[in-house]
Amino acid sequence: MSEIIGFIGTGMMGEPMARNLLRAGFRLKVYNRTKEKARALAAEGAEIVDTPAQAAVDGGIVVTMLANDQAVEEAAFGPRGFAPALGKGLHLSMSTIAPATAARLAERHRTQGGAYVAAPVFGPPPAAAAKKLWICTSGDEAAKTRAKPILDALGQGIFDFGEEPGAANVVKLAGNFLIMSAMEALAEAFALAEKNGVAPAALANMLGQTLFNCTVYHTYGRFIAERNYDPPRFRLDLGLKDASLVLDAARAARTPMPFAALIQQRILSGLAKGRGGLDWSAMALGAREDAGLG
Amino acid sequence: MSEIIGFIGTGMMGEPMARNLLRAGFRLKVYNRTKEKARALAAEGAEIVDTPAQAAVDGGIVVTMLANDQAVEEAAFGPRGFAPALGKGLHLSMSTIAPATAARLAERHRTQGGAYVAAPVFGPPPAAAAKKLWICTSGDEAAKTRAKPILDALGQGIFDFGEEPGAANVVKLAGNFLIMSAMEALAEAFALAEKNGVAPAALANMLGQTLFNCTVYHTYGRFIAERNYDPPRFRLDLGLKDASLVLDAARAARTPMPFAALIQQRILSGLAKGRGGLDWSAMALGAREDAGLG
Amino acid sequence: MSEIIGFIGTGMMGEPMARNLLRAGFRLKVYNRTKEKARALAAEGAEIVDTPAQAAVDGGIVVTMLANDQAVEEAAFGPRGFAPALGKGLHLSMSTIAPATAARLAERHRTQGGAYVAAPVFGPPPAAAAKKLWICTSGDEAAKTRAKPILDALGQGIFDFGEEPGAANVVKLAGNFLIMSAMEALAEAFALAEKNGVAPAALANMLGQTLFNCTVYHTYGRFIAERNYDPPRFRLDLGLKDASLVLDAARAARTPMPFAALIQQRILSGLAKGRGGLDWSAMALGAREDAGLG
Amino acid sequence: MSEIIGFIGTGMMGEPMARNLLRAGFRLKVYNRTKEKARALAAEGAEIVDTPAQAAVDGGIVVTMLANDQAVEEAAFGPRGFAPALGKGLHLSMSTIAPATAARLAERHRTQGGAYVAAPVFGPPPAAAAKKLWICTSGDEAAKTRAKPILDALGQGIFDFGEEPGAANVVKLAGNFLIMSAMEALAEAFALAEKNGVAPAALANMLGQTLFNCTVYHTYGRFIAERNYDPPRFRLDLGLKDASLVLDAARAARTPMPFAALIQQRILSGLAKGRGGLDWSAMALGAREDAGLG
Repeated sequence: MSEIIGFIGTGMMGEPMARNLLRAGFRLKVYNRTKEKARALAAEGAEIVDTPAQAAVDGGIVVTMLANDQAVEEAAFGPRGFAPALGKGLHLSMSTIAPATAARLAERHRTQGGAYVAAPVFGPPPAAAAKKLWICTSGDEAAKTRAKPILDALGQGIFDFGEEPGAANVVKLAGNFLIMSAMEALAEAFALAEKNGVAPAALANMLGQTLFNCTVYHTYGRFIAERNYDPPRFRLDLGLKDASLVLDAARAARTPMPFAALIQQRILSGLAKGRGGLDWSAMALGAREDAGLG
Repeated sequence: MSEIIGFIGTGMMGEPMARNLLRAGFRLKVYNRTKEKARALAAEGAEIVDTPAQAAVDGGIVVTMLANDQAVEEAAFGPRGFAPALGKGLHLSMSTIAPATAARLAERHRTQGGAYVAAPVFGPPPAAAAKKLWICTSGDEAAKTRAKPILDALGQGIFDFGEEPGAANVVKLAGNFLIMSAMEALAEAFALAEKNGVAPAALANMLGQTLFNCTVYHTYGRFIAERNYDPPRFRLDLGLKDASLVLDAARAARTPMPFAALIQQRILSGLAKGRGGLDWSAMALGAREDAGLG
Repeated sequence: MSEIIGFIGTGMMGEPMARNLLRAGFRLKVYNRTKEKARALAAEGAEIVDTPAQAAVDGGIVVTMLANDQAVEEAAFGPRGFAPALGKGLHLSMSTIAPATAARLAERHRTQGGAYVAAPVFGPPPAAAAKKLWICTSGDEAAKTRAKPILDALGQGIFDFGEEPGAANVVKLAGNFLIMSAMEALAEAFALAEKNGVAPAALANMLGQTLFNCTVYHTYGRFIAERNYDPPRFRLDLGLKDASLVLDAARAARTPMPFAALIQQRILSGLAKGRGGLDWSAMALGAREDAGLG
Repeated sequence: MSEIIGFIGTGMMGEPMARNLLRAGFRLKVYNRTKEKARALAAEGAEIVDTPAQAAVDGGIVVTMLANDQAVEEAAFGPRGFAPALGKGLHLSMSTIAPATAARLAERHRTQGGAYVAAPVFGPPPAAAAKKLWICTSGDEAAKTRAKPILDALGQGIFDFGEEPGAANVVKLAGNFLIMSAMEALAEAFALAEKNGVAPAALANMLGQTLFNCTVYHTYGRFIAERNYDPPRFRLDLGLKDASLVLDAARAARTPMPFAALIQQRILSGLAKGRGGLDWSAMALGAREDAGLG
C-alpha cells in the first residue's frame, strides 16, 4: 500500500491510530496543531507538515481525529484548511462530532465534488494502540469502500449505518450516552449499597459475573467502586462535550432524553467542583455526595 | 437427601424452583394460596398442604417465594403462619422484598430461637426451570451453610453479602434498578436514533457485539428495538413494585436516586395508560411517546 | 357557644389553634401526648385530659392536629382512641395526611354512625395564632355545616372541595408541593444568578415586586436569598414527610410528578447532610452546592 | 423630545413599544425585516427605513427588539448592520438573548467607542401596549442614564442590575425560568387533583386567592386549568428558545438546573407532538398525558 494519507490530529487517540496506519504500510502526511506531539511519528516514517492544507493531495484521503466540531470544520474549511487541496478526494472524519456538523461537512465536500465518510470510534487510547477500536461508518457507499483498508488497519470491527452522513455520529453519541447512563446507574446503586452496609466492590463483582458481564460494567464498575479517577482515561471536561452533543442532537430531533439531561447536570456539578481533569467516571461522585457520603 | 422442606409460593418462579428441589431429592410440603397452582407438583411427589403452618416441621426449613413483603410476613407470622410450627428452624426467604422487611422478619425469628436467611434471586422463570438462577445471600453464617444444598439445587451461583439480614435484598434491589436503568437508557438512545433515521435494531446489534455484550443488553436491546412486550416475561405492574421498593429503601437510607425516581415515573405513566399487563420493558414506550413516535 | 370540643394535638400549630377556640368561647378538653405542652392552655380554661378517649363526648366534636397519619389513626382508633367515646359525633381532622388515610378514617367513622370532615390548613404557626389560616374542607355536607363555627374561629377563609373525604387532603398536598416547587425554582434561579455575578437578593426583590408579588415568593425568596434557615419555621424533616405524601398519593393515582420526585431527592440529600432540623427552605442549599457554591 | 431614535424589530412586542415611543414624542426611524409590518407606524409619524444601518444616526440611539441572538448580532454588525453608522452612540438592546451574546455585543460596541445597555422586558404584548412592561437593565452607568427617558416611555418600572453587560439578561432568563417552573408545577398539581376527582379550576381558584395571589399563578393557573392554549400569547416554539437560553447559560456557568432541564424536555415533547404554535403554557399537557388523562 503506497497511497499517501493525510492525518490530522495526533492527540491521545490520533497518535496511536496514525502509528497503526504507518505500520500497515500507509505513507502519512501528519498535521497537528502542536507540532511537537507529532514528532514521534516522524521517527516511524511520517512526514510532518505545517498546515492542514499541506496534508492533502489532490483526490487523496485525509483522516481527521480532532477534539471537537469546530476543530474539524477549521481543519477542512478554515483559512489553511485541507479541503481545497483535497479537491474531489475523501475526508474520513473519525472524531466525535454532531450529526448536524457531519451533514454540513458532507454537503460542503460534495459541492466541490469530494466525498465525506463519518467513521467515529469506540475505545480508549490503549484500544487504539492495539487496533481494537470499534468503528461505525456512514456516508457514500463508494467512499466507504475506499476507506475500508484504512479502517481495517485501525479497528477490530466495522459497523455500517447507511448513507446518511451523520448516522454514524448519532450511533457514536448514543453509545457514549449509554456508557454515561451505566456510570450514573452504578453510582446510584453503589450509594444505596454503601449506605446499607454493602461494599460497592462486592456488588460490582456480582454484577460483573452475572447480569452485566460486559466491558462497560467491568471497567466502570471497578473504577467507580474504587473511586479510581486519576489519572483520567477520558477527561470529565470532555465528557461535558459529549453529553452536550447528545443533548444538542436530542434538541434538534425533538427527542426528550431525561437520563441524558441528568447526566449533563452531574458533569456540570463535577466541573463546578473542579474535577474537569479527573476521569469522566468521576461524575459518579455526585450520587455519593448527594447521599452525604464524604 | 431426605430432609422435608416447606415451600410456600408456587407462582411463575416458585413452581419451577420447587420442581428442581423435588428432582434434587428433597421432600417438599408445598403451600400456595391458590391450591390449584400447586397441583402439578403433587404429581412429582410434593405433599400439598392447606396452610403455611402445615408446611413447617419443628426445627426444619421453610422456603418462601412470594409476590411481596406483606405476603411473606403473612405467611410467616399471620394467623395461619408457619413461624410457630417452624420454631428454631430456618426461614429461607427468596422473594424480592425490602431490606427493612428482612430485618424485621429476621428479628422475629431470632426472638423465637429461629434463623432467617435472605436469598433473593436473579433470573426469569425459564432460568429458574433450568437451575440457572443467580442467588444472593445474607444472614447468619451457620444458617447459610444449612441452606446451601437447597440453593445449590436452584441456581448456578451464589454470592454472599455477609450477616446483615437485609444485605442480599439491597443487592437484589440494586440489580433490578440497574436493569431498569439499562432499559430506560436504551429507550432514549433508540428514540434518538429512530428520529435520526437510524434503525434501533441496527444500533442494538452493534451495542450487543461491542460495548454491551451481556445478557441484559442483549435481551432488552432486542425486546425494546422490536417492541416485543406481549406476552410479558415480567409484568410492568410488578416492575412498579420493584421500583417502589428501590425508592423506599433509598428514602430510608437518605440516598437520592434520580434515575430510580425517573424510572418509577415511566412505569406509573405506563400503568396510567393501561399497560400493567405488558412486559416491564414496555416502560421504554415512554421515551418513544415523548418524542412523538407513534 | 358552650359546646365542649375535644382537641387533640397541641404542637406548634395545634396550641395556638386551641387557644383561638378558647377565646372564641368554646370549651375544650385537650389531649397531647406530652402533657406538659398542653399546660399553658389550662390557664386559659382548657381541661387537660389523659387519653384521647377522655377528650370525646358522645355525639360531640373532636379536632385532631397531629404530626402524621399514624398519629391520627392511633388517636381515633388506637387502644385509647376517642372514636368509641365519640360515637355518632364528628371527627374534624385538620392534620396534613394522605387522602387514602382520610378515606379510611371516614369509612371507619361512618361504620359507627359518625362523621368525618377533612380540614387541613395552610399557614405557619404565627398565622395560626393570628386566625389567618386558610382552610380546605371536604366531607359530608351536614358535618361541614356543623364544623363551620369552629373553622371560622381558626382561619380567615374556607375553601370547600366537595364530599369526597380525601379531597381537601389532595388540595393540601398539591399546595405544599407548589410551595416546594417554588423554593427549588428560586434556588436554581439564584444559583444561576450568583454564578453570573447577580445578587440573589436583587433578583428576589425584582421578582417580588413584579411577576411574583405573592406571599410564597416574598417569604421564601427572602429566606433563600439570605440563607436564613435557622431557627426553622417548618422543619426539613417534616418536609420529607410532606414530599413523600405527595409522591405516595401520586403513585396511588398513577400520576407521574417529576418535580415532586426531584424535590424529595433534594430533601433526602439535605437530611443525609444533617439538615433535618433546619427550615424546609434549606432544601435550596442543594442547587447551590451542585453549582459549587460553598 | 426631539432626538431621533432608531428602532429595529416591530414584531408582537416591538410594534406597540415603538408606538409608545412615538406617542411620547420621540422621532423614530424604524426598520423591520418584513417591511409591511412596520407600515402602521408610518401613519403615526415613524420614518420606515430599508436597512438597519439607515436606522442609525452617528452618536445616536438604536433600540433592538428582535427574536433571537443571531438577529440582534446581524442587525448590529451584519453586512447592513447599524453599528458603523451608530459610531459612538448607544445600542439599547431589549430582546431576550444570552448573557454571553450581550457581553460580546458590548465589547464590540466598546471597541468603536460606543455603548451598550441590556434592557430586556417582562410582560406580554398587551402589557407593552399599555406601557406596563417591567424592564431590567445592566451596562455602563452613563449609558443607562441616557436610556432612561426611553425606558420610562415603555414600562412601569425599571430594575437595575449593575454594570456587567449581561446581568439583566441573566435576570430575564431567571424570570422566564421561574414562570415556566410555575407552569410545570401547576400542571403536575392539577393532574394529581384531577385524578383524585378535584377540579383543577377549584384548586386554581383557591391558590390564586391565598398562597399564590400573583399575576403568574392567576394567569397560568386559569389557562392551564381551562386548557386554553390557542390562540397563543407566547408561542411554545419560542418557549424552547428561552428554555434553551437558560440551559446554555447554566452550562456556561457550571450550574446544574434540574427543573430547567425538565422544562426543556416538556417543551421538546410538545414540539414533537406538533404543538409549537400553541401557547407556551401548553407544555402543561405533558403532565396530563403522562398521567393517562386524554
